[in-house]
Amino acid sequence: MIYLDNSATTFPKPKEVYSSLVTNVRRYSANPGRGGYEMSMDTADKIYSVRENLTDFFNAPSPDCVSFTLNCTYAVNTVLKGILKRGDHVLCSDIEHNCVIRPLEKMRLNADITYDIFKTDIYNENATISDLVGKIKPETKLIICNNSSNVFGFVNPIEKIGKLCKENGIIFVVDAAQSAGVLKIDMRQMHINFLCLPSHKSLYGIMGAGVLISDGLFTLNTIVEGGTGSDSLNYSQPSYLPDMLESGTLAVPAIESIGDGLNFIRKTGLDTIFNHERELILYLYKELSEIDALKLYADYDKLSVFSPILSFNINGMSSEEAAAKLAQKGICVRAGYHCSALAHTKMNTLKDGTVRISPSFFTTKKEINYTISTIKKSLSAF
Amino acid sequence: MIYLDNSATTFPKPKEVYSSLVTNVRRYSANPGRGGYEMSMDTADKIYSVRENLTDFFNAPSPDCVSFTLNCTYAVNTVLKGILKRGDHVLCSDIEHNCVIRPLEKMRLNADITYDIFKTDIYNENATISDLVGKIKPETKLIICNNSSNVFGFVNPIEKIGKLCKENGIIFVVDAAQSAGVLKIDMRQMHINFLCLPSHKSLYGIMGAGVLISDGLFTLNTIVEGGTGSDSLNYSQPSYLPDMLESGTLAVPAIESIGDGLNFIRKTGLDTIFNHERELILYLYKELSEIDALKLYADYDKLSVFSPILSFNINGMSSEEAAAKLAQKGICVRAGYHCSALAHTKMNTLKDGTVRISPSFFTTKKEINYTISTIKKSLSAF
Repeated sequence: MIYLDNSATTFPKPKEVYSSLVTNVRRYSANPGRGGYEMSMDTADKIYSVRENLTDFFNAPSPDCVSFTLNCTYAVNTVLKGILKRGDHVLCSDIEHNCVIRPLEKMRLNADITYDIFKTDIYNENATISDLVGKIKPETKLIICNNSSNVFGFVNPIEKIGKLCKENGIIFVVDAAQSAGVLKIDMRQMHINFLCLPSHKSLYGIMGAGVLISDGLFTLNTIVEGGTGSDSLNYSQPSYLPDMLESGTLAVPAIESIGDGLNFIRKTGLDTIFNHERELILYLYKELSEIDALKLYADYDKLSVFSPILSFNINGMSSEEAAAKLAQKGICVRAGYHCSALAHTKMNTLKDGTVRISPSFFTTKKEINYTISTIKKSLSAF
Repeated sequence: MIYLDNSATTFPKPKEVYSSLVTNVRRYSANPGRGGYEMSMDTADKIYSVRENLTDFFNAPSPDCVSFTLNCTYAVNTVLKGILKRGDHVLCSDIEHNCVIRPLEKMRLNADITYDIFKTDIYNENATISDLVGKIKPETKLIICNNSSNVFGFVNPIEKIGKLCKENGIIFVVDAAQSAGVLKIDMRQMHINFLCLPSHKSLYGIMGAGVLISDGLFTLNTIVEGGTGSDSLNYSQPSYLPDMLESGTLAVPAIESIGDGLNFIRKTGLDTIFNHERELILYLYKELSEIDALKLYADYDKLSVFSPILSFNINGMSSEEAAAKLAQKGICVRAGYHCSALAHTKMNTLKDGTVRISPSFFTTKKEINYTISTIKKSLSAF
């Protein structure tokens, strides 16, 4: 099996993540923060160490600003619905995932908010900023965008948008589902107020946790309330972090796996990871761009930075058919819309979606070569 | 270590759960429903088999009515906020967890809803029903209660309440956090419209998933929207189950572990599990009730049924102190309020909470004996 669907979830995980998982569920698996005995306190310490690890990795204000959710989508919903009030205006980019556009659309239909979509120019950051600036209104409360598209790997100019938000008193929310663990993210330097992450993509944890890191400056209107192990006689949710945003039992094994994944990334080096994946994508791009029957959607040589994702289509064939043919040869890629209506609207791929190839640090050049040759050899059969 | 905090999370898990976990994260760990290649489809099949398993176990209408959340608290919030509209009235019992009272209170403070609390008579189901009936108003839309108290193990008369709801056209929601896997729950027979469960308590899965099983009759107002892998070009969330309630990547390993836990319960027998735990509690109760310096809160001999939970206090000592002393002897119990303001109000334990002992199927009589003797021997030292 050649697994090239790492944008959906990374596979395999680093061996440390597998081995720690077993230790974690046998040793660090009491309910944290709910008991005063050793295993409960040890589990709480372990969870806190993941908060510290994330704080350091993303240069966040403090471990208490790290809240754990079910997944990145829940993190995005928690901040959007926690911050926005009736009458607010929001801007998002034209390459957002449905985890952004669906809650925004829901809130718009409720007549709560309005939103506009700014145009990302993938080859020109200043053009992106210029379009964005033109769409800011007096009532613009919040700008949300992904760090990079989950369909095409295109990157939004996060640092510049953050600076703009800072200057204009606008809250800045970043969905880093496809970049955390690959691209450098510095919350303070990039003026990010809320950072949303999944456990199981390039942070190399298992599926089952998301992370919402805040700057600690906002009290959110919670979408979920419940037991927090704190202030328990109060019928109302605590208003302090992280308890405010963490109701019920945490996803302990998944959270612990984030720590193990982060340690793998630190040991390996973020640059090493990015460069490996970048080279694979550039090589893949070079080879695929020589095939006439393929349609590609960006000139990767001209992109200053990107997430390791490449979408393509085979002329005269649906993306589903193409992916199914690759699957027959043991190559795992994803076809269709990848939960991003916006990106396909932008790239005129609404009819059939795309075939998406997304390597991880564990993908080898040999696997990419096999994939390329399988595509080439099969083209006639296609 | 003697682990007696199974109401917080069961420990250990059955050995099948540990061994399957490793297989699951290595073999069934693609993103389910997001890809057309073998591992993604295998993972989707595995998740679907857990839906089927739960459907059968709780006699639910169909696997599609099984939605997975982060935890039981999220399941409760999803249904309360998904169903209730401005002006609705809700009834809940006086032994609810904060996962019920906090969202209700939040909605009350927003002037959305009103709620009242009915009185549970732990020795007389008919008295409970009588109190409940007296509090039903024309605008009562929904009744929610736990199957059993997480502090005292007291059981609500679910079947009778379900019948009452059915007769009065009231939606019935059950929080089975402390009973699923111990007491028999039959959604159809008990007229339960929504059943909320955690993965990691007596269903013996790992922490990280909750379950909301619905009767399939209601379209909920979602609290979270995002990518569902379905109808992806639509800016709005699908309105069908389970996609409507499952945004973003599922907690795959935790969900898979529910299946392994359920299989353990089926193999062992629900009655065998309940009887073992019941006997431990009755024995513990008998022994502890002979100690003058202890305060107990129910006559377990007179309870027709209960969840395996016993709360007590040592006269002249806070629950935290008592639990800390037991922890020094390697006994893991939980002290304090256990996230249930209501239960402590009812039982006059608001000052100090309680020490809670909660065995699982893996708890032995020897461990209970050691716990009893430790309490007895240490009383003077206490």
